[in-house]
This record gives sequence, structure tokens and C-alpha cells, in this order.
Amino acid sequence: MNYKNTEKVARPDHDILPVIADRYSPYAFDGRPVERAKLLSCLEAARWAASSFNEQPWRYILAERTDEAAFATALSCLLEANQAWAQHAGVLILTAVKRTFTRNDKPNRVAEHDLGIASANLTTQATALGLAVHQMAGVELQKVRLTYKIPEGFDPSTAIAIGYAADPDTFDNADLASRDKGPRSRNPLPEWVFGEKFGSPADAVK
Amino acid sequence: MNYKNTEKVARPDHDILPVIADRYSPYAFDGRPVERAKLLSCLEAARWAASSFNEQPWRYILAERTDEAAFATALSCLLEANQAWAQHAGVLILTAVKRTFTRNDKPNRVAEHDLGIASANLTTQATALGLAVHQMAGVELQKVRLTYKIPEGFDPSTAIAIGYAADPDTFDNADLASRDKGPRSRNPLPEWVFGEKFGSPADAVK
Repeated sequence: MNYKNTEKVARPDHDILPVIADRYSPYAFDGRPVERAKLLSCLEAARWAASSFNEQPWRYILAERTDEAAFATALSCLLEANQAWAQHAGVLILTAVKRTFTRNDKPNRVAEHDLGIASANLTTQATALGLAVHQMAGVELQKVRLTYKIPEGFDPSTAIAIGYAADPDTFDNADLASRDKGPRSRNPLPEWVFGEKFGSPADAVK
Repeated sequence: MNYKNTEKVARPDHDILPVIADRYSPYAFDGRPVERAKLLSCLEAARWAASSFNEQPWRYILAERTDEAAFATALSCLLEANQAWAQHAGVLILTAVKRTFTRNDKPNRVAEHDLGIASANLTTQATALGLAVHQMAGVELQKVRLTYKIPEGFDPSTAIAIGYAADPDTFDNADLASRDKGPRSRNPLPEWVFGEKFGSPADAVK
């Protein structure tokens, strides 16, 4: 039976899909591996993301916890604060982006942006399958580059933990567990959806 | 009755949500406005996206086609090639990112990445509501900055067209209409999901 942290369900001001409202980034994972079929669906969802000129600049380095050595190597590339909880995830992904367009070798200004789209698709698919995803910027970028010999033209970017969320009360790290309690908060729409004047709300969100 | 371009539905190798498989970036929009309730749901979905330290670095400048002057202003900030089709969208959004974390004024390396997550959530919600989304990197960035007086600390980034997709055979621009025909293609998983060696497929996708 998968744990569901009902406190973390979004309290939206307008109707949104359950798969978006239910998503949160847990610190408490229960240590179960992720089934291959589910993992492949998550990766496939990322695959069909939109990208500028369909470049698909995203690259994933995948480590499943069933492969202990590979998982430990990937884990060691996270900041220590992230290792503390990500060690209980079922899958770790280290991401990278291709810096230039393959069609003309020009710089791709939106490579990270499009990686974000792909990883968001992965997250949506994972949520639909009862999995939880916690993305991280806290990565030892240079260590990723050296460990995996990331070639020139590519840059390490983020990390993604996928797994089954656990009840934070069962988590032996009280400090991290406390972050899984209490409601999620977001800036209201009028604070970031602007009309003709940057900083002033659009009519639609007034 | 909304048009559905069945040729553009993804042909995935592994099960994915219909809301991800059905999404594509149309060139042919039918010129209808987007209902306010649907628009608010799309924005709300973006709002609940994940971001590093919950910074929510995304900002949207919103122009609905029902406001002709505002729509024309936003449209004029797109590259001409994009204006040709985006003029038929129901809503245009110009995006920007906040460069630093509000909590400590340090640079936010993943601002565009997290904008990508938010805009992906918007796209997923829109698809569920029968809307189509076409994101663009082809934006006159400096024109956006000057037109909307984007303050220091923020940078214009992408544009998003939201509306109702049209049958490309009804589109008066044959060149653009042709892009809405034919299947979508994506790199297979083994080409971008790597194991311990960057460039070599992970076991899970072999």
C-alpha cells in the first residue's frame, strides 16, 4: 500500500488535474525500488516533451537502487544534504544538457528550460503511477563531469530522485521529516501573472 | 467541436498518460479566445510546479486576444516567423525569470529550468482541457525588455501560445500547415538514457 501525504496536496484557487495537485517533493522515501515498467513509462513521458527545434537537449544518467554500486556512485554526486534523504529513493537520475543545436552547432539558449519540461513530464507520469519525484539543483556538477566523463558540449545540470514516498513519522531524520509536514505554499497568481505593466496583475487574475 | 489531430498523437514505446501523448505544438490555431476559467486552471497548474528552494522564479506577461491592443503588443515581440501563426492563438504569454534567489540574493542557476517545469505543467493542464500550447524560444528578447520595462534582475525568456488547434487543411499558410502533418518523432530512450558510461544506454532501456 503506497503512503499518501494528504497534507501535501495542493489547495488550488482554480481547478487543476489531480496529477498536478497531488505532486510534492518528499524527503521521506521508503527505500523500495521502482518497477522497471513504471520507470520506462516515466522516461517515455519525458521523451515526448516539447523542445526548441525538437532538439531534445536532455540527457539522463540513470542509477537504480537494485544496482548498489551504480546507485552509490550517483548518490555520491549529490550535495551531502541531499544524500541524507535521496539514499532512500528507488532511482537516481543525474541530468545533463547538450549546449548546441545538432542541426547547426549554434548555442541552445533554452537547453535547461527544455530539460525542465522533460523532467516535468517525467514527474507527472510518475505521480500518476503512485511514485514520488524530488528534483534537485544541489549537485556536485564537477564531480558528475569527472565521474561520468561528460564530454565537451554537454553540461551536468540537475538530479532527480524517484521512489515511493514514506510517512515522515517513520523517517529517522526528524529535521528532514518535518519538511514533509505542513501545507505547500505558492505565490498567488497576481504576484507573477502580469498585464501590460511588469509587476502589475493581468486583468484575468485580478 | 474541438479539432483533434490524430496524426500528432505520440506513438510511445511504453505506456504514458493520454495528456502527455496527445500534446503537440500546432501551427494552425482557429482564432478562438480561451475561456477565462480554462486559462486560470492553466496558470494555476503552472503555479504548483516544483522549483529550487520553492523560489518560483517564473513570471508571465499575459495577453488575451479579446484585448486587441495588448495582444498585438505581445505578438510584436515574437520573431516574425512565429507571428505568422501565433496571431491565431487565443492567448499569448511572454515569460521572464528572476535571476537570483529572494532569500539570499544569490544567482539561481536553474531559473530557466524551473520556468520550463511551470510551463510544462501549464501545457499538461491545457491539454486536459482540450486546448493546445505551442512554446517558443523565438522571441525578440530586447524588445520584450523595452516594451514591458523588465527590471534589472529579471530576464525575458520564452513565449507561449495557447488556443484551439485547427485542422491544418483550413490554414491559409500551406508551408506552416504542412508542419502540422506527419507523425511526431523522438530519439529512442537508449540514445539519451545512459548508465555508468555517458553515451552508452542504461540497462533499463537496453
